[in-house]
Amino acid sequence: MRPSKRAPDELRAVTLERAVARYAEGSCLVSFGNTRVLCTATLEERGPPWLRGSGKGWVTAEYAMLPRATHERTRREVNSGKPSGRTQEIQRLIGRSLRAVTNLPALGERQITIDCDVIQADGGTRTASITGAWVALHDCLAWMRSRSIISVDPLRDHVAAVSCGLYKGQPVLDLDYAEDSAAETDANFVLTAKGGIVEVQGTAEGEPFSEAQFTELLGLAKAGIAQLVELQRQVIA
Amino acid sequence: MRPSKRAPDELRAVTLERAVARYAEGSCLVSFGNTRVLCTATLEERGPPWLRGSGKGWVTAEYAMLPRATHERTRREVNSGKPSGRTQEIQRLIGRSLRAVTNLPALGERQITIDCDVIQADGGTRTASITGAWVALHDCLAWMRSRSIISVDPLRDHVAAVSCGLYKGQPVLDLDYAEDSAAETDANFVLTAKGGIVEVQGTAEGEPFSEAQFTELLGLAKAGIAQLVELQRQVIA
Amino acid sequence: MRPSKRAPDELRAVTLERAVARYAEGSCLVSFGNTRVLCTATLEERGPPWLRGSGKGWVTAEYAMLPRATHERTRREVNSGKPSGRTQEIQRLIGRSLRAVTNLPALGERQITIDCDVIQADGGTRTASITGAWVALHDCLAWMRSRSIISVDPLRDHVAAVSCGLYKGQPVLDLDYAEDSAAETDANFVLTAKGGIVEVQGTAEGEPFSEAQFTELLGLAKAGIAQLVELQRQVIA
Amino acid sequence: MRPSKRAPDELRAVTLERAVARYAEGSCLVSFGNTRVLCTATLEERGPPWLRGSGKGWVTAEYAMLPRATHERTRREVNSGKPSGRTQEIQRLIGRSLRAVTNLPALGERQITIDCDVIQADGGTRTASITGAWVALHDCLAWMRSRSIISVDPLRDHVAAVSCGLYKGQPVLDLDYAEDSAAETDANFVLTAKGGIVEVQGTAEGEPFSEAQFTELLGLAKAGIAQLVELQRQVIA
Amino acid sequence: MRPSKRAPDELRAVTLERAVARYAEGSCLVSFGNTRVLCTATLEERGPPWLRGSGKGWVTAEYAMLPRATHERTRREVNSGKPSGRTQEIQRLIGRSLRAVTNLPALGERQITIDCDVIQADGGTRTASITGAWVALHDCLAWMRSRSIISVDPLRDHVAAVSCGLYKGQPVLDLDYAEDSAAETDANFVLTAKGGIVEVQGTAEGEPFSEAQFTELLGLAKAGIAQLVELQRQVIA
Amino acid sequence: MRPSKRAPDELRAVTLERAVARYAEGSCLVSFGNTRVLCTATLEERGPPWLRGSGKGWVTAEYAMLPRATHERTRREVNSGKPSGRTQEIQRLIGRSLRAVTNLPALGERQITIDCDVIQADGGTRTASITGAWVALHDCLAWMRSRSIISVDPLRDHVAAVSCGLYKGQPVLDLDYAEDSAAETDANFVLTAKGGIVEVQGTAEGEPFSEAQFTELLGLAKAGIAQLVELQRQVIA
Repeated sequence: MRPSKRAPDELRAVTLERAVARYAEGSCLVSFGNTRVLCTATLEERGPPWLRGSGKGWVTAEYAMLPRATHERTRREVNSGKPSGRTQEIQRLIGRSLRAVTNLPALGERQITIDCDVIQADGGTRTASITGAWVALHDCLAWMRSRSIISVDPLRDHVAAVSCGLYKGQPVLDLDYAEDSAAETDANFVLTAKGGIVEVQGTAEGEPFSEAQFTELLGLAKAGIAQLVELQRQVIA
Repeated sequence: MRPSKRAPDELRAVTLERAVARYAEGSCLVSFGNTRVLCTATLEERGPPWLRGSGKGWVTAEYAMLPRATHERTRREVNSGKPSGRTQEIQRLIGRSLRAVTNLPALGERQITIDCDVIQADGGTRTASITGAWVALHDCLAWMRSRSIISVDPLRDHVAAVSCGLYKGQPVLDLDYAEDSAAETDANFVLTAKGGIVEVQGTAEGEPFSEAQFTELLGLAKAGIAQLVELQRQVIA
Repeated sequence: MRPSKRAPDELRAVTLERAVARYAEGSCLVSFGNTRVLCTATLEERGPPWLRGSGKGWVTAEYAMLPRATHERTRREVNSGKPSGRTQEIQRLIGRSLRAVTNLPALGERQITIDCDVIQADGGTRTASITGAWVALHDCLAWMRSRSIISVDPLRDHVAAVSCGLYKGQPVLDLDYAEDSAAETDANFVLTAKGGIVEVQGTAEGEPFSEAQFTELLGLAKAGIAQLVELQRQVIA
Repeated sequence: MRPSKRAPDELRAVTLERAVARYAEGSCLVSFGNTRVLCTATLEERGPPWLRGSGKGWVTAEYAMLPRATHERTRREVNSGKPSGRTQEIQRLIGRSLRAVTNLPALGERQITIDCDVIQADGGTRTASITGAWVALHDCLAWMRSRSIISVDPLRDHVAAVSCGLYKGQPVLDLDYAEDSAAETDANFVLTAKGGIVEVQGTAEGEPFSEAQFTELLGLAKAGIAQLVELQRQVIA
Repeated sequence: MRPSKRAPDELRAVTLERAVARYAEGSCLVSFGNTRVLCTATLEERGPPWLRGSGKGWVTAEYAMLPRATHERTRREVNSGKPSGRTQEIQRLIGRSLRAVTNLPALGERQITIDCDVIQADGGTRTASITGAWVALHDCLAWMRSRSIISVDPLRDHVAAVSCGLYKGQPVLDLDYAEDSAAETDANFVLTAKGGIVEVQGTAEGEPFSEAQFTELLGLAKAGIAQLVELQRQVIA
Repeated sequence: MRPSKRAPDELRAVTLERAVARYAEGSCLVSFGNTRVLCTATLEERGPPWLRGSGKGWVTAEYAMLPRATHERTRREVNSGKPSGRTQEIQRLIGRSLRAVTNLPALGERQITIDCDVIQADGGTRTASITGAWVALHDCLAWMRSRSIISVDPLRDHVAAVSCGLYKGQPVLDLDYAEDSAAETDANFVLTAKGGIVEVQGTAEGEPFSEAQFTELLGLAKAGIAQLVELQRQVIA
């Protein structure tokens, strides 16, 4: 029995709220249960220096947590001079996931930065961020098309993400904080609407896991991400 | 005529929403028009080292802005190793303002940290932060009393803040971003419900201003802060 | 009775010594009693990048304290990677004060940096810095005119500064360290020779103060700054 | 055809040389073709502060590259104040992999740090590091047993790692730099001798990949890691 | 002919002014011609952690230059997070030189920090610093003896320093900035009153120099330092 | 008797191994007994900005130690944001030594960086680095000539270095770690094949030393460096 009483293959209540930031070109407040992340998209006319002359654009992401998003207050990273290893790992994952479904030449030599700021954290902040960031990116691109900055939609597919894990030996979908802390294995999956795998990361916290267990987790993820993509479709409709 | 069409002595629409952060001991989402700040209060059983043995507690504040709170995206301060001078100035002001109305010995040797994170910025973020931080602090203290951590209420008074300025030569109350950028003089006032001055800061951006002008600005601030205090009273009732 | 035996409206002995730094374009060693600050002016032909093409110049300031300027040795800020919040606040105040009396377009696209290094600190270092910095700036501008770098004097007025405070309930002028540590309210005033207010900052350390008290402090400051401006006049004559 | 002429399921020439660092408690110079990593193990009698009183030990890793390990010289990270995100990600992966096969309570409250310094880099530095680090850790533990610091061997299994990828659509084992730069999908596998999965990371650089492709990569990795474990067995025999 | 018209073996005008810093336990303003350095000594009852329990004290030094001590303004090091290599090299040299003539056990477990702040720089700031720092240290120790903090004088000898160099092929004593910039070889000597060598550093800027030339430089230094020591004797008398 | 049983004027076993780094333009693994340093030379077509337009090239060096090169593990400098004072001092010494024998205009506006990474440290790492760096530089220049990047050999002479010291009152050559820790005086000499002095640094750790002692140390260094130069000659032949 999961602490949240959910069925093993049951997502938390997921909501995607668009246009929540007055000044951003696209934005989405995503909730996976008590996890809430504000995703904003910013268009910058200049891409990074190393893309100059390539004719291609870039999509990147930054990630941070408000200090009291968590049960215990977390120190602000500003005092340490650089994002932590965990923060950098997450923001690179978000950026790679979005680029995997974006036609970068169609963007032109521009950069879109997606800021994912965690307002409240109850596990799964990176997967919620990817799922919400896609909506913010979509809206930013729509904003660009409505102003004829681009003529073709650079989005090639949906992308969404979810975590799975072995909790008391049982494969379960969409771990919340209580489950995540106790899980023996923790895996994050980033998939497209068409079912392609963009990223998979699986880590044994204690005992190594088997190939069969890994396949079960992937199965849960595919079903969960299909629901997340359906929600994205509804909200942009 | 103000860009916002407000009368010279008219505040923006102000709202104070309590209990918006699930894990914090007190919280308040404050809006001054399009400016929105999330204030959370965290109780820590250990005060700063230099208070040890003094029998007194401490109230401190941290302040930050989400990158896309603003019209143009602002770079995260995390990469520069330390909060900017402006950030430090603001967080010290918020902390001093709250301590001015708190009976620190009544807290015991504990620290309360108020995090003020600007979700959206349209001018007046420091004054909105102080006004909302008071509510978060109030709720944190109520939480402590309900658990018998303290027996006496350490709050001695309300504190709230507002900016005033000379805009096209006219003294006006509660500057928004458009007014703030164009104002010749910009002043911030932090007052108590009883009318005491906790902090006043006035800066001539161009021409120096006169004592008479300064007195007019203070008059506007007193009237505006009386309204803010009334709102604080209603929301905690 | 003040610890220094001064009358409530009495400045400390103030001296302004010009041309104390052999290589600087202007310099002034200012003393307010035991507080001593070396102010040097440096002309740089290139202004900051954000002014390029504007036709305007810039005046900026940096401030620091020698480690043993104080009763107890202070750690050098060099090891912390950035000036402290207090240092940044002070250097921004000095810069703003000087720019308020400078005709920036008359400077051309050049920058003058005033370095204020506290040799000995007995309270009031920021107000002494502003008062001495004006002399260093004046001499740098005279140096420029004597070399025909500029043809018009960009200085529009004098600027000087003094602190006031409530010490044992009594408004007093020009706080030294002993008074400053014990004052209930501490205020800094930056005024021009013509009596305009450039900056006012008042802070209640404990109890809030009243409007009447603040008016008294401003009155003391006006009289004190008139004397400081007279000294500036004599020294540049 | 692979640039290196290897068969799709063929490892590069792998060597493990023990006892290469005179002062370290254990060491191994590992080569995967032209990739060479020096792994040294250091025993510290004090574990990290957060383990104090837990009765458990800790194994951690640090990773760096010599500036001219690479085709182009890489700037030293020392000037940037913190290891890069990539460096942190790799050193956390190495540490987790080793802890997964170590009985931490059997270590006592001690820490073993494995330093992995890349002398020459031709792709696969993180997988070579893990494979060599296991040998350095093994020798450090043997050193401890020979001095009766511990009585039981804390090693529960071998651990080794290899990368696989889709190169021109073909699943291949143990990517060198030329293949890695051109691969569409890149995956790292960390497995135990018993076949358990400790970590799996797969990333689509361009097109998403399918579940079937991923299963093929895992199959290659299992065969490759069986050979690496066999080499570890021979070298410690 | 030297730019300064001095004879090859002629020091600049040297002055040592004691008790120039009101709050320091010892202080000396040293001038070597236009080079001026303020040296202050601070007694701290706690030595560095690594000396705890050793029964010995420590003497250390810090060195910095005011930004406009030089012909061109120098950026403050505060923004770079750490003293430059040159600064660290100089402050370690000053500390070593002073410790070479101090009986550290006689100090007890205390630390004396000598701050050498260059007010004006015209070459030879490190040698002036050492020469003046000895006076500040002497006065700090006298202050300690007068308060019975120590009973025995820990100073075993004088120490002073001077630079020499090959200028247009000619060995000369006490280089000023103009000579230093053009010298082919630059050497610094730190000697005691008894003639012992504490430190010698010689660097060929262009052509290597010969042993005979080096011996000539050392001869000049011995004569110059004898004069500096005589000045120290007079000033403390 | 020296701990190493060597005669007072006896070098440790010295080896110079060329072409040890596959990707570098020149490289040398140098051993002085158990001290081992990997020196690699990197050619960069762009020199430092301050040489632009001068027609001259530049040779610079960086130095670092692997964490477990030493008896006790040393913390990586990466976490402190800047090389330590010792590291900076050493890398500046290596760079100056190499430039003293290089015809910089003959390089053209290019930079050669020599990285000296200490693999194992048993005293004398800076002198071994200089001796090996010369070989790496030589091979880099040969590589450039073979590709007609330069037509004239910019090397004007050999340069090599060795340490000497007073160990139990006896002058000895080439200190190892055990001797270095106990020596009363420690000196480093950098000489050319022609016998010119490029750099000399002598430091009394305890008692000052005499001129006669210093002359003895220099004599030992000259004989030792003659052997090191002979080895350089053999290895490049």
